[in-house]
Amino acid sequence: MAEYPPLFESLIQHLTKLPGIGRRGAERMALALFTQDRATAQGLGGVLSRLHGELRSCKSCGFMTQEEQCSICLSPVRDQNLLCIVETQADVVAFEKSGGFRGRYHVLGGKLSPLKGISPSQLNLFSLAGRIQSQGIEEVILATSPDVEGDATALYLMEILTPLKCRITQIGRGLPNGSSLGIADSGTLRQALESRRPFHS
Amino acid sequence: MAEYPPLFESLIQHLTKLPGIGRRGAERMALALFTQDRATAQGLGGVLSRLHGELRSCKSCGFMTQEEQCSICLSPVRDQNLLCIVETQADVVAFEKSGGFRGRYHVLGGKLSPLKGISPSQLNLFSLAGRIQSQGIEEVILATSPDVEGDATALYLMEILTPLKCRITQIGRGLPNGSSLGIADSGTLRQALESRRPFHS
Repeated sequence: MAEYPPLFESLIQHLTKLPGIGRRGAERMALALFTQDRATAQGLGGVLSRLHGELRSCKSCGFMTQEEQCSICLSPVRDQNLLCIVETQADVVAFEKSGGFRGRYHVLGGKLSPLKGISPSQLNLFSLAGRIQSQGIEEVILATSPDVEGDATALYLMEILTPLKCRITQIGRGLPNGSSLGIADSGTLRQALESRRPFHS
Repeated sequence: MAEYPPLFESLIQHLTKLPGIGRRGAERMALALFTQDRATAQGLGGVLSRLHGELRSCKSCGFMTQEEQCSICLSPVRDQNLLCIVETQADVVAFEKSGGFRGRYHVLGGKLSPLKGISPSQLNLFSLAGRIQSQGIEEVILATSPDVEGDATALYLMEILTPLKCRITQIGRGLPNGSSLGIADSGTLRQALESRRPFHS
């Protein structure tokens, strides 16, 4: 078959690097970007070229911001005594969408993984202890991912946090809403039993 | 919940304009573009800003190219006597992938639609008759889409093409591979019967 012009092929290749986009989806998006109005392609191109120059990590928590500090750290209505430690910026977004948390975050930027060569020095840990002490945080919630690497990261965090005399909790483990007992793995079922609590009607 | 920084929100808005991308998918893509390596975002931004400047429509057939003429029009091995008229550049790509056509194309850039205000003057028709005569094309295949607007466009093309004394054909109508008789609409079944042909084992 005839080949695409090199620039168009390059556009397809770049689009396939996005999450959830395969070759077919990338072709469809590239065709739309070329055949639709110029404004979409040029607007998107402009935003992308500014992205890494203007958007940075909040110097306090590590979430994204265009200023020195993010809107969550600067907000006067957030609970100052509560800090939730998460792995990624996407995790902050997920908690914010849930609407269930009114404290602040600390974004690690990953989880410990000897296999992928991610050691504590590559995580956003340097400022953590100082932040907890200077801001007088009373409770730290560990919200690392529920897998081997996430649990190892939580254990490592415990070592740092224990001397600080703050309360340390971990988000609940158990069955997610809408799931069924029959398809849950045995590890999850064990943890659901361990996490049982008094029932209120 | 906390709001995204304006630049990040703008990136999400631009991404939702792409086909098949909703708000959630756009958020996921934007997070990946910001948190993954800078090269992806900057490479994609660079290609997009060059796209409409460097990629244009082939002056002969209307397919995309970075030169004056596209690779299909310039290819010496394509059948010069066969011209397939399609609506969009995506249609050319679909035919090329099928591997079933070795002639050349003419891309109309749309189909006649009084409701959407698309009249013959907005289609790439100006050069069509001259192209067929000067290139000595023997057969023109109408491959407009199988709907009311596509059929109206095919009828309009007949008016232009009939005086040119070339053979005019239309791509087959019937049941697509892998479908079933039970779910086919009656219009398709009627056309499948009309398009019946001798069976060869």
